[in-house]
Order: sequence, then structure tokens, then C-alpha cells
Amino acid sequence: MFPKLRVVTRFHCLTFLTDYGLEDAFVAVCHAVASQVAPDLRITDITHLIPLGDIRRGATVLAQAVPYFPPAVHVAVVDPGVGTPRRGVAVQAGGSLFVGPDNGVLSVAVAAAGGAERAVSLTNTALWRETTAATFHGRDIFMPVAARLADGLPFTEAGDPVEVTSLVTLPPPECSISADGARVEVVTVDGFGNVQLSLPGADAPRAGLTPGASVTLAWDGGAVAVPFVRTFGEVAPGEPLCYLDGGDWVAIAVAGGDAARRFGLRAGTRMTLTVT
Amino acid sequence: MFPKLRVVTRFHCLTFLTDYGLEDAFVAVCHAVASQVAPDLRITDITHLIPLGDIRRGATVLAQAVPYFPPAVHVAVVDPGVGTPRRGVAVQAGGSLFVGPDNGVLSVAVAAAGGAERAVSLTNTALWRETTAATFHGRDIFMPVAARLADGLPFTEAGDPVEVTSLVTLPPPECSISADGARVEVVTVDGFGNVQLSLPGADAPRAGLTPGASVTLAWDGGAVAVPFVRTFGEVAPGEPLCYLDGGDWVAIAVAGGDAARRFGLRAGTRMTLTVT
Amino acid sequence: MFPKLRVVTRFHCLTFLTDYGLEDAFVAVCHAVASQVAPDLRITDITHLIPLGDIRRGATVLAQAVPYFPPAVHVAVVDPGVGTPRRGVAVQAGGSLFVGPDNGVLSVAVAAAGGAERAVSLTNTALWRETTAATFHGRDIFMPVAARLADGLPFTEAGDPVEVTSLVTLPPPECSISADGARVEVVTVDGFGNVQLSLPGADAPRAGLTPGASVTLAWDGGAVAVPFVRTFGEVAPGEPLCYLDGGDWVAIAVAGGDAARRFGLRAGTRMTLTVT
Repeated sequence: MFPKLRVVTRFHCLTFLTDYGLEDAFVAVCHAVASQVAPDLRITDITHLIPLGDIRRGATVLAQAVPYFPPAVHVAVVDPGVGTPRRGVAVQAGGSLFVGPDNGVLSVAVAAAGGAERAVSLTNTALWRETTAATFHGRDIFMPVAARLADGLPFTEAGDPVEVTSLVTLPPPECSISADGARVEVVTVDGFGNVQLSLPGADAPRAGLTPGASVTLAWDGGAVAVPFVRTFGEVAPGEPLCYLDGGDWVAIAVAGGDAARRFGLRAGTRMTLTVT
Repeated sequence: MFPKLRVVTRFHCLTFLTDYGLEDAFVAVCHAVASQVAPDLRITDITHLIPLGDIRRGATVLAQAVPYFPPAVHVAVVDPGVGTPRRGVAVQAGGSLFVGPDNGVLSVAVAAAGGAERAVSLTNTALWRETTAATFHGRDIFMPVAARLADGLPFTEAGDPVEVTSLVTLPPPECSISADGARVEVVTVDGFGNVQLSLPGADAPRAGLTPGASVTLAWDGGAVAVPFVRTFGEVAPGEPLCYLDGGDWVAIAVAGGDAARRFGLRAGTRMTLTVT
Repeated sequence: MFPKLRVVTRFHCLTFLTDYGLEDAFVAVCHAVASQVAPDLRITDITHLIPLGDIRRGATVLAQAVPYFPPAVHVAVVDPGVGTPRRGVAVQAGGSLFVGPDNGVLSVAVAAAGGAERAVSLTNTALWRETTAATFHGRDIFMPVAARLADGLPFTEAGDPVEVTSLVTLPPPECSISADGARVEVVTVDGFGNVQLSLPGADAPRAGLTPGASVTLAWDGGAVAVPFVRTFGEVAPGEPLCYLDGGDWVAIAVAGGDAARRFGLRAGTRMTLTVT
């Protein structure tokens, strides 16, 4: 006797991360498309300077940003396979929605948000722009669909449901902790050359990392001994240090310098961390 | 007996494109000036990384972006002649307004929007900032006038009417189509080195460009044979390709690479495209 | 008998200037934190490309931007001493609030706004994010406190009052004017290599700088004679010039070129300016 109630969830915030760069109109055009669908939507650019096609870097930066936002629709487009049969998906996790290619770029943030609750393949072409370019799904598919989802479109109307276990996920970086150290991996390098390792700050004490400890880092091609400190100001300019970064991960830096360049480190470099 | 009705057109969106760069406060200051005039105006930056003084590149990027916006006031300032007697203008075309120096930077977008319907020279100094710097008309003239136009100021109050035929327009790039190809020109190179040619996608079939065709491109200093494909994923990484880009123009790229650098191409390079 | 009235000042605009760069999520995360505190706040980015740790450059660009904004909360974070005992402060000046580290980065803008009226040390930890990273006070302290101040929090509740005379201020650049010139200093170099000197446009006539004057600039390592003109278009491409820049300061440029690189000038370079 009562009509079925439909709960409409509206999101007031949409975030946008890509490898589109800032020299062209690509980002602005996506903003325009979204704001035509949902004029009051607040769009926050996370970054558009992900190196072209670097899915892992995109996934990492997205995951770093998401925890600080209210429930939002997060659109991430690092998409070297655009135009090939790879799926576009929307994923629900932790009260937010994630929209982008199903190539792993969403997976780290989705995992950090508690894991995928449900997912759809973006097969509802009625939501796409009328004509779609083979090389610009950000503008023609991801943004218009994401804006409609933000505007209250029921999740399941974005396309066919897919098993969350079928979503492409990036393998987690290596991290094995022992009493006096850890085997870790460089997760990402930020714009200053600071090197984030795969060791969460919460696990640092278990690996023996306590304030003032001396840490030896060794990797294929190099090694360095650094102090574990709270902040850059505790070492002299030009000196390396180990610290907990803003995301609460163990990291390596050089005060006033570029640790990645100095030590030849990059995402994926494996290293042994020994506390002495 | 009835007062003359005045239709007030308000625009909710203002776009902004310049060669100001992102290292200084120039762009922010223009935003501030506009939002003091029209606090609720939504300002979307198209890009501020047009190479300094490159009017053609500015004109091309503006024209690429405009079709995706709702009716708006578009401000474009690439202005090597700032402070000289060149005019500042506002141009009405296709339901939108275009504001900037009369040096051609608006002309490609205006033409794409259907051509100039009317234009004024920005001679109404009452709309300018109280003091105007000889080198910063973006802040002192274009933005305050554009914001007032967005806020409903009647178009003709921005200054003296000028003949639309007197507006500076950039010569259209060469494009002559034959049965088995075309003589074309590089229109622009995007931030990834993808090379947009002066051949619209709609005319590609007439030039013999059909999926799978092999295309030989020849220019002063080089030549290359590439397949005409839908998307980057259809060729191996590092391989060149010909495709329809996001703006539906025939373009040349290198999968995961920089076609402009690899082949030494830049805006204005003329080439012969032969389909075999 | 009447309750004490409390005047609540709300700011609708918050500006944000840092050396965080644009490659990471740092800026977006700060936006997210601020908009969770004050959802309707308009945040305008001034620039995030201040060279890492360059306090003077940050202070100069902030001071260049502030005059064009309505009363606002200005957050500036160039903070090489983050995590050390340097104070975080909020300063009231000229109807606006300035929030950031007490290392001088706010001081030039505060002075230009009429000088500090009152200041607090940001000691009210109840306003900070629940957990604060030693290296990311922009996210954890400055932005949340600034957003609350914008939202109407009484100034004195942000922390303990401090004497405005105790605030760190950058020494003003040298400028001594004589009848036929001046001894000055390079204040800053913009993104195009234009060189702003420490001589205000208002004082230019006193130094003999009148339109058409010939000016000889001499510094340790070089000298050049340039005309004092209104705008770039008055000299040939590639030629140097002296002019009043957009901020109404005497400046040196090269038409279509980079004066700082060509003459080896940078912030702090002292020079003698002689009018002949």
C-alpha cells in the first residue's frame, strides 16, 4: 500500500585526479561537463600532474587524499588503456563512490576506505555524453556519470553490477617486519623527492623505530645510515633523515634536498631497514 | 505607456585563459577582482600555461574548451601588445561573450561559436579599475569588465560598438582534401606532444581515412607511415599512430611517447597526408 | 541585565599560498580540511609554486596579492622550520587575518596592510586536527584554525595573545633615493624573469625616473643601460627595459625574454640605478 521509498544520496563534493597535465583545456572541459550536470557541485582537483599513465602513482596519491574529504564522489583517470575493452567502473566504499577505469587506479583508496561494498560497470550509455571520443573517457563517460551519481542517481543505475572480487587491484607493496627492522618497498616519491616507504607509522615501534634510533637502509645499489627523527629541523641542512610523514608512513628525506634523486630511489625500490 | 523592458542576461560562469603562469599571484589577483564585482560568479580556469605571447596556441586551446561550457563569459589574455594601442574588445557569439585583446586570441573560438554577432571596444573607463597598469590589463580592464558583463551589464555599455568585420582574426590553417589524402597543417601540440592537424574528423572519410588505413605523412624534413586507428591501445608502446582526438580532429601521437618531439613537429608545420 | 553582545566577524574568502607544489595531494587535502570546517567558504589559491622554503619569495607574493582581495583570511605556509619550536600565529591587520608560521612569511603583507593590530600564538590545540603530523602543520593546524576564524571564531580564542612587536619580520629591502637615481635591491623575480626592484612607483619621479629617461643599472658583476618606458611594446623584442610593473614598483624586463637569467639577477641583488 505504501510506495517503495527510495533513499537519494547526494554528494556535495566531487574530487578529480588525472594525468592530464595543466597545459591544455582537458581538466577545465571535464569541470564544465560535470557542472552542466550538477551546477552546485563543488569540484576539488587533487592533482593533474600524475606522470602520464602511472597507475600506481595515481592510486597512491588518491589514497593519500581521500581520508580528509567528507563523503564524496572521487573521479580518478589515469588510463593508458582508454579505448580498449578495459571496463569503466563505479565502486562504493566507506560512504564514498569511486569512478574511473578498472585498472587499479581506484583500488588503493577503495581498500583504505574499507574495501569495495559493491560495484557497477559503467554500461548505461544513456548517461554518457552523446558522442564519445575513444581517447577522452574522462570527459565523455567518467565525469558525466560521476556528476549524476553525485546528484543523486541511484548507484545501480550507472550500469551492470559486477562482483567486487573481479575489480582490478594493485598488489600491496612488500612489508615484512622483524624485531630490528623491516623489508619494505618505496611506495611513492612526492614532488620534493621525499620517499614514502611501505611501513605504516603504527607499525614503526614493532620494527624498533623509536625516536633517536639510527636506521640503516640498504637497497640494490646503495645504503645509507640515517637518524629516525620527528621533523626536518632536527638534522642539518643537506642531511638525510627517516621520519613519519604527513600520512603517517615511515619516509626518507633530505633536509632541504631531494632524497629520491640523491639516493636513486623510486616507487618499487625494495630495501632493508635495520635499526641499530 | 509601458516602461521599456530591458532584458538582463546574467552568466553564472566565467572562464579564464592566460599565459600568466602559475608561479605568481597574477591569476589569483584576477580572480579576486572578478569576485569583488560578482561574488557568486563561478570562475573556471581553462589554463594559464599558454607559452608567453603565443596567441595562436591561446586561441586554439580556448576554441577547444568553449563548446563544453554553458553560455559563459570567456576571458582570454595572451597579450604581447599590452599597453600599446591595440584594442580591448568584447565579442558576442553563439550566446556567449568573449573578452580580451583584439589580437586574434578570441577569434578561433568566436568563429567556432558561429561567428561574431556584435562587438564593442572596451572604452568605458568607468568600468576599469581606478588605476590601470600599462602591463596588466587582465586585472585592470578585462576581468572587471567581464565580471560586470557576467553580472548583467548590457553589452553595449562596455564601450563603443565596432564592426565585427574589423576584429583581428587568425588565418585558418591550410586544409585541402583530395581523394587519397590532404594537405594540412599542424594546428597545435598538446602537453603530451600529441599533434592536432587541420583536418576535421568529419572530413576524414573524404580524405580516405578509414579505420585500418595506412597513412603516410610527409613534411619538410621528414616522413612517417602510421596506421589510422581508434585508440592508443591498438599500437605497441612507442609506436606512432594517427587517430581522431578528443576534439574530433585528425591527430598524430606516439603511444606512451611525444610525437611532436620525436618528429620535430610544431604548430604551423605543413604536411602531406597520403592514404595508401 | 543584557547579555554581553559578541560581534561575530565572518569572512567569506580564504586565500592559500604555499610551497607545496602541484604534483601531490597536499593542497587538496588542506582544501578538504578547511571545507569540512566551513563548507561555504570560498578558497582562492594564490600560488603553491613558491620555491621550497623560500620565505622571502612567499612573503613578497602574498603582499602582492592581498590588496586585491576583500577582507579575508590569508593562510601562507612556507615553513622550513615546521615541527621545530617556531610559533604558529594569527595576525590581524587592515581588516584581514593572516595565519601561518611566525617566520616572516606573513610580515610583508601585514606591513602593507597597515601593520599588525594584534596577534595570537596558535596554542589552542582544541582547534587543531585530532592528530597532528610534525611535518604538515598546514593541514593539521593552520587550515583548521584559519577556517574556524573565517567562520566567526573570535580571534582571541585561537590562542594566547602575543605582543605584535615580537612577531618575526623580514628586514625591508634597501632603497635610498638621490636626485639622479637610487640604491636599490631586487625584491623578487616573477615567473617570466621580470625583476622587481625595491623602488616604489610613487617614488620614481624623485629618483629622476620620468618617461623616456635613460637608466643605467649597475651591480656586482654587470651593468646595463635601459630606457624607462610605459610598456613592453615600446622596445624591440629582445631589448631590455625599465618600467612600472603591475604592482606599481620599478622593474626591469626584457621584451619577450627573461631579464633575471640574462643579467644574472635574483632576489637580494643590490644595484645602483643612475638616471642620465
